[in-house]
Amino acid sequence: MRNIRFTLEYIGTNYHGWQIQKNAVTIQQVLEEKLGHILNKRPRVVGAGRTDAGVHALGQVAHFKTSSPLPVEKIFKGLNSLLPEDIAVLQMKETDPAFHSRKDAKKKEYFYQIWHGCRPSPFVSAFVTHIPCRLNIKTMKRGASLFLGKHDFHSFCPTKSTIRNKVRNILYSEILEEGNLIRYRILADGFLQHMVRTIAGTLIDVGKEKIPIEEIKKIFLGKDRRLAGFVAPAKGLFLKKVYYD
Amino acid sequence: MRNIRFTLEYIGTNYHGWQIQKNAVTIQQVLEEKLGHILNKRPRVVGAGRTDAGVHALGQVAHFKTSSPLPVEKIFKGLNSLLPEDIAVLQMKETDPAFHSRKDAKKKEYFYQIWHGCRPSPFVSAFVTHIPCRLNIKTMKRGASLFLGKHDFHSFCPTKSTIRNKVRNILYSEILEEGNLIRYRILADGFLQHMVRTIAGTLIDVGKEKIPIEEIKKIFLGKDRRLAGFVAPAKGLFLKKVYYD
Repeated sequence: MRNIRFTLEYIGTNYHGWQIQKNAVTIQQVLEEKLGHILNKRPRVVGAGRTDAGVHALGQVAHFKTSSPLPVEKIFKGLNSLLPEDIAVLQMKETDPAFHSRKDAKKKEYFYQIWHGCRPSPFVSAFVTHIPCRLNIKTMKRGASLFLGKHDFHSFCPTKSTIRNKVRNILYSEILEEGNLIRYRILADGFLQHMVRTIAGTLIDVGKEKIPIEEIKKIFLGKDRRLAGFVAPAKGLFLKKVYYD
Repeated sequence: MRNIRFTLEYIGTNYHGWQIQKNAVTIQQVLEEKLGHILNKRPRVVGAGRTDAGVHALGQVAHFKTSSPLPVEKIFKGLNSLLPEDIAVLQMKETDPAFHSRKDAKKKEYFYQIWHGCRPSPFVSAFVTHIPCRLNIKTMKRGASLFLGKHDFHSFCPTKSTIRNKVRNILYSEILEEGNLIRYRILADGFLQHMVRTIAGTLIDVGKEKIPIEEIKKIFLGKDRRLAGFVAPAKGLFLKKVYYD
């Protein structure tokens, strides 16, 4: 079997996330269906990040196995011509049979977009979370820096999470400002479900001065989901890049 | 009666154009409904440009009359809070009772976006017309310049058009290039139905070298819709600005 790796971008707005589920259209499902038409047999497509419903991606990585003899260039062009406008494949190549897009990912980068103050433009609003008041950026920047390094993210994922090891190493955690737009960038060796959105919600509360930044340390140590901020809406979140060795 | 003037931007994708019609949602209808809630009486909203279904606007101008004593600032904020995400009011003010957004407009500026070559990003594709081959930009630039000045646009509007005087004065007609994006900007004292889209379609055919630029003069003189190019899709068109004295 050949192993094909590809990078894709998508607008998550009209999809119930990455992962296949009953009675809802997902990115994985659309990819598998279209590839099925091209390869004459529907492959299983595995993605590096299982993005939630409504989350966007600029550099999602995925792979699938196929016994089809079709050249990669033909699969690439065929897939792009069949995909709807809100999903695009950027690159595709045949790779090591052992490559696994999720298991081999060493780091992932996300960013979260917040628009504070007056109403965002219609051309922006599907890609930001709008906070109608002005946020304290200076405090948010200091807050963001407290996430750097190794922490137990127990308080930043759903209570029902069954993952044992919740320690993740944050390599980059920074707030950038551009007019009314606040972009929070985070790079880590891995992420738990809702982790970036819960950090974003916590940083919004920090910017509103509802959560003092001294609390952040206590939120980590308390290992209790109720201590952190809200899960910020999916539409502000982008999977930026997946890193491999 | 007070006369209220406002500027707005919208993504046209989900609307059947500006003008109210049966069984389809339009920009004018949404504005009138929301203003009706705020003013306790539904006003008639008049827009400067009756944009087609799917056309976007960055600087549409409109006005309405009301006997409500509500301060403009309250109407402005109330309207923006009730409008869906894809429509936003940028400015609102009380104006001369004689002001008429359409009749008083002296010039209008539109631009049309074309993406040529490889597939556009999902984040761009709702706002461009994709031409899968490379276009000859140099020829398109020369073609665009031939629209400058006064011309009879008989060949660039629907055959069924009942407007007698089809002469319009083009003050600006230019092709700008940025990577795979081609942006055609046009400023004129007025526009006929489908005029910008038919000019854009003609310029695309010029860029494909299907219409030699020498033909453009003949298209004007022939006064026959069949001579010009196709009506380029609505999704590439933006109403940029409306000018008044």
